[in-house]
Amino acid sequence: MAQILKGKEVAEALANTMKKDVEDLKAGGVVPALGIIRLGERDDDISYERGAKKRCESVGVAVKQYLLPADASQEKLLGVIHEANADRNVHGVLLFRPLPRHIDDNAVRAALLPEKDIDGITDGSLAGVFANISLGFPPCTAEACMAILAHYGIDLAGRRVTVVGRSLVIGRPVAMMLMHKNATVTICHTKTKDLPSVVREGEIVIVAAGKAEAITGEYFREGQTVIDVGIHVKEGGSLCGDVKFAEAEPVVKAITPVPGGVGTVTTCITIQHVIEAAKKALVS
Amino acid sequence: MAQILKGKEVAEALANTMKKDVEDLKAGGVVPALGIIRLGERDDDISYERGAKKRCESVGVAVKQYLLPADASQEKLLGVIHEANADRNVHGVLLFRPLPRHIDDNAVRAALLPEKDIDGITDGSLAGVFANISLGFPPCTAEACMAILAHYGIDLAGRRVTVVGRSLVIGRPVAMMLMHKNATVTICHTKTKDLPSVVREGEIVIVAAGKAEAITGEYFREGQTVIDVGIHVKEGGSLCGDVKFAEAEPVVKAITPVPGGVGTVTTCITIQHVIEAAKKALVS
Repeated sequence: MAQILKGKEVAEALANTMKKDVEDLKAGGVVPALGIIRLGERDDDISYERGAKKRCESVGVAVKQYLLPADASQEKLLGVIHEANADRNVHGVLLFRPLPRHIDDNAVRAALLPEKDIDGITDGSLAGVFANISLGFPPCTAEACMAILAHYGIDLAGRRVTVVGRSLVIGRPVAMMLMHKNATVTICHTKTKDLPSVVREGEIVIVAAGKAEAITGEYFREGQTVIDVGIHVKEGGSLCGDVKFAEAEPVVKAITPVPGGVGTVTTCITIQHVIEAAKKALVS
Repeated sequence: MAQILKGKEVAEALANTMKKDVEDLKAGGVVPALGIIRLGERDDDISYERGAKKRCESVGVAVKQYLLPADASQEKLLGVIHEANADRNVHGVLLFRPLPRHIDDNAVRAALLPEKDIDGITDGSLAGVFANISLGFPPCTAEACMAILAHYGIDLAGRRVTVVGRSLVIGRPVAMMLMHKNATVTICHTKTKDLPSVVREGEIVIVAAGKAEAITGEYFREGQTVIDVGIHVKEGGSLCGDVKFAEAEPVVKAITPVPGGVGTVTTCITIQHVIEAAKKALVS
């Protein structure tokens, strides 16, 4: 029986620290605030937004919403980003993507100030996570993986870690963050040969393959710690990850569940970044 | 007997392509030009500069030098960078570092336009190599490794590659560039446990450990391709790499020599970037 690495426990611990940080900021006259920019009414966006707002409320972070119709022009969207950039009372900006096709994603990313880029989408944030410098913020899902490992006291220095997936929102940034903590990281992807044996090399495995239950029992061995980043809706409506949990769990040492794993921590990290941005704004 | 991957062959092939590119640019009315900014008279800088100027001359690239005393103020240096940024006749800028201690390296890096950053030192270039987008240029040494592999027709897709070293000038960027070519990359560093066995996992090994002859025969096995990035002066004045060549060469399939390997290609890449920058400037 593997240890279940519960996102809820991590989220609660982070929330407690955040509440204290918000109190300190408020005592200094600053109310940390999240700006949310949303185009249209996509279900995924609204659901994530609901979670973020709830979390903001629970720790004392203010929310300012910028809502635009799905067919809003690029000019209009850039105007809203410039408004949020200029507003000293908005510390971090969450911008839902993918954007509609008539909008140039690169122009939008370039418009956002890295210091308000709590979701790690700007080139500044990418350079920051690659170079390990304080510039922007890493993508929240990548940092959620790191927060789970840290919460459960899983040491990374000198450990072999296999990362499955090389996307810019999770695989690549989490690989860099693990390396910055002195792990020896192998990055796998769709062109990797004999993926099961490369996954078995990892003492810790971060799975961000983007395919429901694609990583089956044969990929794992005793003693491994598995962080499953995937989240998919199965036929019938239940959720699952990239890992076939029922097969992996009896084999490995520790594993995150889906739901209740990485996803539960991700929203928390978004809000934590707002608080960090507010702290930095106070200092500068 | 291993195949010796000679830098000179690669450099000659690159030079031929560059000459053709420069002719085309000149026919279009553009003379590609390299700006060189140097503070003081450090031997290493002057030696590299001499090589770069010689290479520029041989392929038809112009050179504009900006020379400052070693004790020049930061303001003065930033002024020179702004001048080079603004000069439409200077397409790429080579700025010798490390800078003297009284100068803020970050402020200097931030001042240079990424599109003229042919040495890959700006945050824009770092984001570009991480995200695999056309923003700035990768560090020249990292690209020299890629050029050698390409010249000798060494396929990367699906191959296991071990990178020894995680610096921002070579280890990290070359790992990303290899991954963008679909290799499965493991990044090692000083905290990696049992380095020899991780190096033996690689079908291709990029060694940028920064220690003279630290990677001895026991690290290698049959069939490997080894790119040695190190260059060190031994007692007596001869040069050596990070790999103990005499021990590795009889074991592996192919290896770069030192001198005459990666270093020989690096200057070429610097000039190639100037030409690429001139092409981009022509289009935009």
